[in-house]
Formats: sequence, structure tokens, C-alpha cells
Amino acid sequence: MTAQGFLLLLELVGVFAFALDGALVAMRSTHLDLFGVVTLGIVTAVGGGIARDVLLGELPPATFRTWYYLATATAGALAAFWGQRLLVRVYRPILVFDTIGLSLFSVTGAQLAVDAGAGAGQAILLGGLTGVGGGTLRDVLVRKVPSILTGGLYAVPALLGACVAVAGPLLGVESGVAAFAGGVVCAGLRTGGVLRG
Amino acid sequence: MTAQGFLLLLELVGVFAFALDGALVAMRSTHLDLFGVVTLGIVTAVGGGIARDVLLGELPPATFRTWYYLATATAGALAAFWGQRLLVRVYRPILVFDTIGLSLFSVTGAQLAVDAGAGAGQAILLGGLTGVGGGTLRDVLVRKVPSILTGGLYAVPALLGACVAVAGPLLGVESGVAAFAGGVVCAGLRTGGVLRG
Amino acid sequence: MTAQGFLLLLELVGVFAFALDGALVAMRSTHLDLFGVVTLGIVTAVGGGIARDVLLGELPPATFRTWYYLATATAGALAAFWGQRLLVRVYRPILVFDTIGLSLFSVTGAQLAVDAGAGAGQAILLGGLTGVGGGTLRDVLVRKVPSILTGGLYAVPALLGACVAVAGPLLGVESGVAAFAGGVVCAGLRTGGVLRG
Repeated sequence: MTAQGFLLLLELVGVFAFALDGALVAMRSTHLDLFGVVTLGIVTAVGGGIARDVLLGELPPATFRTWYYLATATAGALAAFWGQRLLVRVYRPILVFDTIGLSLFSVTGAQLAVDAGAGAGQAILLGGLTGVGGGTLRDVLVRKVPSILTGGLYAVPALLGACVAVAGPLLGVESGVAAFAGGVVCAGLRTGGVLRG
Repeated sequence: MTAQGFLLLLELVGVFAFALDGALVAMRSTHLDLFGVVTLGIVTAVGGGIARDVLLGELPPATFRTWYYLATATAGALAAFWGQRLLVRVYRPILVFDTIGLSLFSVTGAQLAVDAGAGAGQAILLGGLTGVGGGTLRDVLVRKVPSILTGGLYAVPALLGACVAVAGPLLGVESGVAAFAGGVVCAGLRTGGVLRG
Repeated sequence: MTAQGFLLLLELVGVFAFALDGALVAMRSTHLDLFGVVTLGIVTAVGGGIARDVLLGELPPATFRTWYYLATATAGALAAFWGQRLLVRVYRPILVFDTIGLSLFSVTGAQLAVDAGAGAGQAILLGGLTGVGGGTLRDVLVRKVPSILTGGLYAVPALLGACVAVAGPLLGVESGVAAFAGGVVCAGLRTGGVLRG
């Protein structure tokens, strides 16, 4: 598998996780029907990547250039809708899927920004934005104060994960390894922040 | 009238309808003065088109390239402010104007995306986004859960209307006819969804 | 100091004022920790400029091209967090910093839009958007009805200030003088609107 193919795979896993997460939030916080649940799942899953591509000037955004992202997001949202009973058995499912999406999007967003020619600092910021963007949009639409503002660390793990994913290759580390390490840093800090908060 | 002129005319009717709609929402849901009412009318009227142009990379957006859109939006918002008593006689005016705007923006947004070089799938998505964008922004600003998430079908009619408007010309149907058919499909589904919901 | 250097200086003062303002709002309206306060300060400070650059197609936005903006925004938010007791002595500090940011961003946003090749009408609109964008984003995130919709004049002073900043140079007035006059117009109208409202 090429480095690019691997990056796409990680992105799509992140899309699926965020779609599950957004759909679960939709089912819990308001009386939404199937269409509302799927819509919020998709918005959560693709919002961060669209924001990144808009700021990079990579238009139209990747979400609209292939069908992979929207198909994966739709599948994730439908899986949450029909698999509610199974998902309830996951320990704090919204937190788990949100953390997976946050970690994967921060590192893939940062590496995609580097591939698009962004400098290291910009790539870290855009990686962090990719991670937090979808969840922030989700919270605004269901009228919650977004996670980026409330406790439990949200933006900081995303930025540090992106930082590892960007710095690694500059220091000679293979980019897949750096992405993995960045994702672990982000997920660890986020989980630690939630458990302490 | 050229095809482009006809498209612009439909767009401006949509802008006027959304401006009426946004201004009526502003007058009902919070204590807003004239400036707040006009601002919300304009944001509702131009939000979807700006989002479409940003994602297409057609910058600055059409809204800022000519004065037609903002002038029409301002006129619509002022008409709602001064014509309240007349508009109350319309059956569920907010729903009516919202449906007109949704239908017109979905089909014109899709055709404008095709004209800007987008593929069929992208054009349908961007048409749907043009339709739902302004109303979603309106709802976020007045702190309602947006229509795209709640029942009564909102995004689905927009996407199907856009689909008809995009597919028609590919199948040899004249683009004005396809736009009309797409608008009827969107308006019919939306109205049916609301009456059943 | 060159005209461009002077424009950047004014922008950074605006960034600092909006960061103080956003951080103060964060400390008052919800139970946010240090990270939430700093995040809201930064979003308030850079949101308007990013929106302007996206609509101008100047991507990536200036905020991401140099470290000045984010460093100044972070400094402003931290200053608000640690300097709360001093800031309380300012008369209505949120209003004061918001007015400073609004005035400076409207005139600098308009002049930057002109420099980027926008026409006079577009530049005025984009200047106004730069002024009101950050505060609107701040209000949406903490779930307040945004200032652009409620009384006391918010968007109108921003647009008129931008108008003066754009019209001045066209009439032969030196651009620094026009920016100063535009800022005074905006701040005066805003303050007058708040005191009367």
C-alpha cells in the first residue's frame, strides 16, 4: 500500500468514527428522525476536512472530489442508527468515536496540508482544525457549547498530535510511523483529559 | 432571454423569497430591531450561494461581484418589515417563502456548479447546499435547531431537486425545463413532508 | 513606517483587543477553563480576518501565513485571563475592546481588500465582514444571539467605517488618514448606538 493510500485509509476510518459519533449525538440530544441523524453524522464526519481544504485553497474540497468520503460517512451514520443496541455496549461510545476521529483527522489533516505545500506551522494548525472542525460544527448545530471551549482538553491534543505527525518526517521518521505516534499522543492526552476532567 | 439571464432571474426570486423568510423569522423569534431584521434577511438570502461559491473556488462569491443579490435581499427584508400585515394573510408565510427559496436555490445552485465545471455528483451536492445553507445559517444565528436536522424533509428534497436539474440536460432535456421540473420536485416533497410531519 | 507596516500594526492592535474581548466573554458566560478561554479569545480575534481572506480567495489566510496574528491573539487572551482584576476597572471592558476591534478590523479589512484587487463596493462589504465576523463567531460558540442581530448598531458602524476608509483614498485623502477617520466614525456610531440602545 502506498503512503497516499494509507493516508486515505486512515482518513476514511476517521470519517466512519465521526459519522458514528455525530449520529449518536443526534439520537441523544434532540428528537431527530432518520434524515436528521444521518445529516448530523455526515456533517460531523466531513466538516473538518472541508474547513481544511477551504483554508488551503484546495477547491473543491476532497469531500466533493471523490465519493469515498460521503459514502463512508453515510454508512457510519446508518450503522449508528441501526446498530444503536450494539453500540450502547461500548464504554462511553460517543467519547470513544470522537477520540478516534479527532486523533486520525489531526494527523492526516496535518500530513495532507504538508502534501499541499503548507509550511510546518500552518500544517499543524490545519491538522488541529481538521480534528476539531467536525465536532464543533456538530455541537453548534445541536446547540451545545462546543468541546473546544469546555474542559477535558480537545484542541490541545489535536494540535500536539498534528505537531508529532509534522515534526516526525522533518526529523527523518517515516511518515506512517509519525502519524501513528501523533495519533497515540492525541488519543492519550484526550482520554487523560476527559478522565481527569 | 438567454439561459444565463433566466438562471439569474430565478436566483434573484429565490434571494427575495429567502430574504422575506429570514426577516419574518427574525421578527418572530427574538426582539430584533430593523437592523437585526434586515441583517438576518440578507444572511438567509445570500448564505447558501456564498457557501457554494467558496466550495467551488469561485472567489469572490457572486454575491460580492454584482450588486443585484444584496439589493434584492435588502429589498426583500425591508418588504417583510414594512409589509408584515399583508404577509400574515399568506398561509404559513415562513414555510411558503422557505420552500420557494429552497427549490429555486437547489436547482440554480446545481446548474451554476455545472457551468463552473463541477461533475454531476458535485453539482447535486452543491445545489443541495445552496438550498439549505442560508436557512441553516439563519437557524444557527437565532439559536433554533436547524431545519436540516429536524423532521419534515429539508435536505432530501433539495438534493433530489438538484438531481433532476443536473440529470435533465445530460438526458437531452432543455436546461430551463429541467430546472422547472427539479424545482417542482423539491417544492412538492418539501410541502408533502411538512404536511405529513 | 510604510503604509503596509502601519496597516499591519493597526490589525494587530485589533487582534489584541478582540482577543481580550473574546476571553472576557468566555470567562463570564460559561464555566470555561484556561484552554476554553484562550480558544475563544483566539477565535474571536482571527475569525473575521479568515472569513475575509476566504471570500477574497487569498488562501491560505493571512492568519496562517505569519505567526504575528496567532501570537498576538494568544497574548491577548492570556492577558485577559491573568489580568481580570485590572480589566474590571475599565468601564464596560467587553464593550470597549469589542468597539476597538470592530473599528480597526473594519477599516483595515476594507483596505486589505482594496490591496487584494477588490472593487470599492466589495471592499466595504468585506471590511464590514472582517469587523463583525469574529464577534459573531464568538456569540454563536457561546450560544448568545449575535450582536449583528440585536440592537445597539453593530454591522452599520462597521460598514460606514469601511466606507470612509475606502472612499477616502479615491477622493485623494491619504490612506492612513482615511483609516483613522473611518475608525472614528465606526467607534463613534457604535458607542452612540450602545448608549442610546
